[in-house]
Formats: sequence, structure tokens, C-alpha cells
Amino acid sequence: MTYCVAMRLDAGLVFLGDSRTNAGVDQISTFRKMTVFENPGDRVLVLMSAGNLAITQAVRQILCERIGPAEPSVWTAKTMFAAVRVLGDAVREVHARDAETLKDFGIDFNANFILGGQIRGESTRLFQVYAAGNFIEATHENPYFQIGESKYGKPIIDRVVHPSTSLDVGAKGALISMDSTLRSNISVGLPLDLLVYEVDSLRVTKFVQIDQSNQYMAMIRNTWGARLKQVFNEIPDPTWRDSTTATGAPRLESDISQPVRVPLPPFLSEGAETAERAPAVQLVAGQPPRRAPE
Amino acid sequence: MTYCVAMRLDAGLVFLGDSRTNAGVDQISTFRKMTVFENPGDRVLVLMSAGNLAITQAVRQILCERIGPAEPSVWTAKTMFAAVRVLGDAVREVHARDAETLKDFGIDFNANFILGGQIRGESTRLFQVYAAGNFIEATHENPYFQIGESKYGKPIIDRVVHPSTSLDVGAKGALISMDSTLRSNISVGLPLDLLVYEVDSLRVTKFVQIDQSNQYMAMIRNTWGARLKQVFNEIPDPTWRDSTTATGAPRLESDISQPVRVPLPPFLSEGAETAERAPAVQLVAGQPPRRAPE
Repeated sequence: MTYCVAMRLDAGLVFLGDSRTNAGVDQISTFRKMTVFENPGDRVLVLMSAGNLAITQAVRQILCERIGPAEPSVWTAKTMFAAVRVLGDAVREVHARDAETLKDFGIDFNANFILGGQIRGESTRLFQVYAAGNFIEATHENPYFQIGESKYGKPIIDRVVHPSTSLDVGAKGALISMDSTLRSNISVGLPLDLLVYEVDSLRVTKFVQIDQSNQYMAMIRNTWGARLKQVFNEIPDPTWRDSTTATGAPRLESDISQPVRVPLPPFLSEGAETAERAPAVQLVAGQPPRRAPE
Repeated sequence: MTYCVAMRLDAGLVFLGDSRTNAGVDQISTFRKMTVFENPGDRVLVLMSAGNLAITQAVRQILCERIGPAEPSVWTAKTMFAAVRVLGDAVREVHARDAETLKDFGIDFNANFILGGQIRGESTRLFQVYAAGNFIEATHENPYFQIGESKYGKPIIDRVVHPSTSLDVGAKGALISMDSTLRSNISVGLPLDLLVYEVDSLRVTKFVQIDQSNQYMAMIRNTWGARLKQVFNEIPDPTWRDSTTATGAPRLESDISQPVRVPLPPFLSEGAETAERAPAVQLVAGQPPRRAPE
């Protein structure tokens, strides 16, 4: 797997991708997932990919090879919409060639892409492209896309990223999101490619490949985890009804509630400590029983 | 989907499950995922389930109905290992009856369970049971299990939960993990069932059903998000090489690195702003190019 995230902010675009590929845990390799198409002064397009490496490399190769002046390509597309259609067509071309054979081997046609950038005459745009070659575009309400192992790093982005977020803060958010993912999933790994595109620059000005020795990433990895634990410890522990210590926390139990209990079987219920046990209730599908308040 | 998490701590067990079930976003229902088998003084077993609701309910129903004194059941099992085998057998029974038919409808046999608790004469034990009816047990090195939408809430648990964690702190960690999941995935929803089992109590002493009005959960939801943002803001933003402002942050760029660039097509490279652009490099699959340091 892999993890890539891209944001479309008012100030520009942020792209971050890892470089781990695996076919089973005994076959882990490094393949960078980010590819840049840059014609300074005219356009910058950044492609990131996740999924089956043979598929995503084939798609990328098509984009790299179709470069005749008369051919539709990411180099000649007048708009990002036209460019992402070129990408979608490339995905469909690979699908037409490979999908049936892959199916014979029980392999899904699994490929996802992020394509973002700016073409002169337009503002920045950001797209997510699916395995079917169709795509969606980032909007003000949904300013980011993730592909690959996206779930671990989603909560922090949901909390801190908005279109008005600055590029540096967006990059920091992406790196923290990546840090959470790296920690919880070994199929995502260093080095990382981070590219920050400033709106209307029409060239790559900020790029860094981040490996184990990167001081900023090391600071994030240490600081974020430590501060998270600190915040966690500062949040008061729950106080149960019968607690004798007051932690100042709001009450955890606001009323008497009971779990869904399975009634004791008859051969056990005679002689059981019935006085201490909640009344047996029938399990009714869809309408879980609750013991009446005492 | 759903999200359930359980921890086996030195002081006891923590179980937390949501209650949302969905078959498409237009069919969302509330089904509690936690079921308690309690024979006070003898045993407490807590079952949580995720996956296809028809399957998980059928499995639960088998556990509830097989209650003759001579039948192997969770009530008569001498050990938790024997009890989890009863559960595994029930999963296999439902598989034998339903899996083939479900396959005809393109539906996977998708069911996951957590079973934990204590039977008199043993210590607490915690198991995760797969759709095949096989299972694994929590250990000192891996003291927790998650089923359902597990990824959003994994990073925080990885950071804060250890076997020596107290039950209240474990419950807090589970609730924060759930909060991150609730925020990022609408297929997980309130109310929550939280059960905290104290080792050797052999009865249910701490249980709460948490809904929108729960003050402690409301405090978590507000405080955790706000404090997370605060910590995020306190972490210095990255400083780029050409930055004129010093933020005190470690350097983001530790050396000159370049993205994987696709060479400009020949018809564009003549007359392009070559002086400002990195030298074109060949894309070689598996060995992404890097521009030599300047």
C-alpha cells in the first residue's frame, strides 16, 4: 500500500506521498509515488498514485510517452479538466489491456490517482481519479484528497485543514497525518516526497524528499506523539457512579443503563446469585433490551 | 460498518462498541454490538461483533439458544479458550448454512467478533474471532483488538495504551479513539456501549450507554479536538530554504532534493525557460531519478 494526500488551499497546493510498495511483507520496496510535469511559466502538474504498481506505472508511462505535439497530453491540455481526462483515458487504456488477464489471476484492477496543479490561465485545481478513469474535483467544502492507506491520517486533517490554511500549516498537517499513518501501518514508509505549490508561480519552488535524517520530520515525530500523550493525560479520567475520588470530570454515567444481557439458562438460574444480578431480559433483535431504571 | 475496541489491561478489560448499522447511507439503523453473558461469581463474557448484521445476529442467537446443561456453551465452558471455540463453531455453523447463498448474491461472508472476559479459575482473556471461526488472543505485547472501522482510531491507541494502563485511562483512550472515528466516518454512530470489567470481580460493575447527552463524552469531544488544534498550532511550521523568517523550527530541507520529473517533450523543450528548470531526467521504472546535488 501507500499513503498520499493533497490539499487545495487558497494559497496553493500541498502534495505529500510516501514511497513504500509491498507485495506481502516479505517483498517491500521503495517506489516514489509522486511525478511532476513542469513546464515553467506554463504549467505544473503533480501526479500521485496508489494501488497495483504495475497498473500505476503503466498509466504513468503512457502519460510520459504520449508527447507528440498533436496528441492530447498533460503537456498540451488547455485546462486541468482536459489534463485529468488524459489521465482517465490512460487508466482506461491500461484497464482494456490488463484487467481481464489480472482477473484470471484473482487480482483486482486497483489503482487510484491524485492529479493537481495549475495551467496558465486557470487557477489551481485538484482531482482524484478512480480505477474506472472517472474523477472528482476538490472544492471549497472538501479541499483535500487522500489515496491508499487514508484512514489513519484522516482525523487530524479533518480537524485542522481548511481552504484558508496557509501552505506551511497545510504541509505541517500533511506531515502529521503521515506520521500517524507511518506509526500504525508498516505498508507506508519513508522517504516522503513533499511538494508545496504556490498559486500562480507556474513552477516548482518548494520540494523536499524527507528521509530518516530530516530534522523537521524528526521533530514532528517526537513532538506530536509526546504532546498528544500530554494532552491525553490532561483530560480528566472518567468518574464512575461509585467512585470515591473526585477528578473534576463530568459524570460518565448520566443515568442507569444496562448492557444487552443474555438471560441465564434455566439450569443455571436456579441457585444463582439472583439478588445481585440484573433481571434477565429477552433478547429481541433490533430492539435491544434495557433494564428499567432502578 | 461499526467500530468496536477492547483492551486487556493488567487491571481488567475495557470494551467499547458503537451501535450504527448501515446498508447504504439511506438505510442506517441502530443495533447495539455488545452482548453480555454474566453469571455473577462464576463468569463474565462480553461479545462484540462487526460485519454483516444477519450473520452476526445469527451467531449471537446460536450462543443464546444452545443452553442445555450438556451442550458446550459459553455458560458451561471451563475456560475462555473453550468459550471462544464455541463462538468459532457458531460462526462456522452460520457459514455452512449461509455462505454459499450469500455468494450467489455477491455478498461476502463478512463477520468479525471480539470475545473477552473471565471465567472463575482463570485470569481475564481477550480474543478476536475471524469469519473463518479461527481466532487470536491478546497478549502483553498486543493488548487490544479492534473490529470494524478500526483505522481512524488506531493511532491514538497505539500511542497511549499499554498493559499497565489503568482501566479509567484505558476507557478514556477508547472513547477518544471512538471520537476520532465518529468524526471521520458516518458509518459509525452513537449511542456507545462502554463496559469496564475489573479483574476477578466476576460480575459487571461498570457499564454505561453513552448518547448525545453524556457529559463526559461531550467533554472529550470538545476538549480533545480543541487541544489537538492547540498542540498542532504550537508545533512550529516548516522553514523552507529561501524563507526570510525564522520560526525556530528545524530545517525541512536538509539537502537539495528533486521530485521525479518527466522530461519536457522535444517540441516544448526548445524555447522553454531551460535556465530555470532542472535538467530533464529519464524516468526509469523502479529507480526514480534524482538530480545531482548542485
